[in-house]
Amino acid sequence: MSVITAFDALALPVTLDPPAGPVQLRFATVDDIESILELLADDPVSASRGDTASPDDRAAYEAAFHAIDADPANALLVVAAPRGDVIATMQLTVIPGMARVGATRLQVEAVRVSSDLRSGGIGGAMMRWVTEVAAPQLGTSLVQLTSDEARIDAHRFYTRLGFVPSHQGFKFTVPD
Amino acid sequence: MSVITAFDALALPVTLDPPAGPVQLRFATVDDIESILELLADDPVSASRGDTASPDDRAAYEAAFHAIDADPANALLVVAAPRGDVIATMQLTVIPGMARVGATRLQVEAVRVSSDLRSGGIGGAMMRWVTEVAAPQLGTSLVQLTSDEARIDAHRFYTRLGFVPSHQGFKFTVPD
Repeated sequence: MSVITAFDALALPVTLDPPAGPVQLRFATVDDIESILELLADDPVSASRGDTASPDDRAAYEAAFHAIDADPANALLVVAAPRGDVIATMQLTVIPGMARVGATRLQVEAVRVSSDLRSGGIGGAMMRWVTEVAAPQLGTSLVQLTSDEARIDAHRFYTRLGFVPSHQGFKFTVPD
Repeated sequence: MSVITAFDALALPVTLDPPAGPVQLRFATVDDIESILELLADDPVSASRGDTASPDDRAAYEAAFHAIDADPANALLVVAAPRGDVIATMQLTVIPGMARVGATRLQVEAVRVSSDLRSGGIGGAMMRWVTEVAAPQLGTSLVQLTSDEARIDAHRFYTRLGFVPSHQGFKFTVPD
C-alpha cells in the first residue's frame, strides 16, 4: 500500500445532495485560493487566529496551497454551488500509523461552510461523504478531526454524525 | 517548499539527556517493529483498542511500518537506552495547511514510553526535542496532538510542556 496515489481513488467531482439543493464537491485549484481565504476569514475563530484574507498574507497562502497540492498525502477540496461559486472547503490527510493494529487514518482539517449557508445541510453532506465514501475508497479505517473548544455547535454536529469526542486536542505554537 | 525531504532536515540520531540518563533518539528501522508493538501492548489504552502484540496482527503492523517508511510526510522514531533496547516511540507527520495564514503543522501521534521507565523524564525530553528542535528544523509553526480523555496524567504533562488544550478531538470508526 502506498499513499502516493491515494486520492486518485476518489471519484471526484461528485454531486452532493444536501437539503439546500445539489452542490459539487471537487479538488481545489489555484483559482479557488481567494474563495478559500474568504471562507476562512468569514469564520470568527479562524479570523481570531490571523486568517483575515489580508493581501499581505497572499504569498503565504499561495505557498501553502502549492505545498498541499504537491503532497500526495493531502488533498484540498471545495464545494461549489450550481453557478460555480465556492461555498465550502475542507482538507483531507491520509496518515499511516502503527497503533490500532496498523490503522491508516483519514484526518479532516479546516472544514468551513459559508456562514450564510449554514444549517443548509452542506457540512453534513460533506462529512457523510467523508465517512461513507472517501474513507472506504481510501482504505482508511478511522476518520479523525479536532474542533476548537469554542465551537459548541460543531461538537454537537460531529457527535450527531457518529463521531466520538474521545480525545483532548493540544496545540503548541512554535516561537518565531 | 516541499515535504518530500522534510525529515532529512532532522539531525538524527541525537542524544537526549533526561534525568534518567542519556538515551538516543533515532529513526525506527524494520528491526524495531517488535519493540514498538510491545510498547503499544504495554499501554492499557492501546491494548483496549486491539494492540496486543498478537502474532496474528504481525502482517498488518509490518504493512503499516512500510507505509510510514514510504511516506515522505511521516517519520516513525524510537528512543534507545545505552544498551540498545528500545524504550519509547512516537510518530511525526508534517501537514501543510491553509488555515493560520498557511501554517505547516507538525503532528505527533502514538507517543509511548515503556511503563517501567515513566517518570524518568524521557517523554518530556522527547516532547521538548519536538517543540524546540524538530519543529523549527522542519519549518513547522504549530505542533499538534490529541490524547485520549482517559489519559489525565498525560494531559497534565502536555500542559506543563506548554501545549494548550484548546480542541476537542473526535474519532469515527469506519464500519468494515
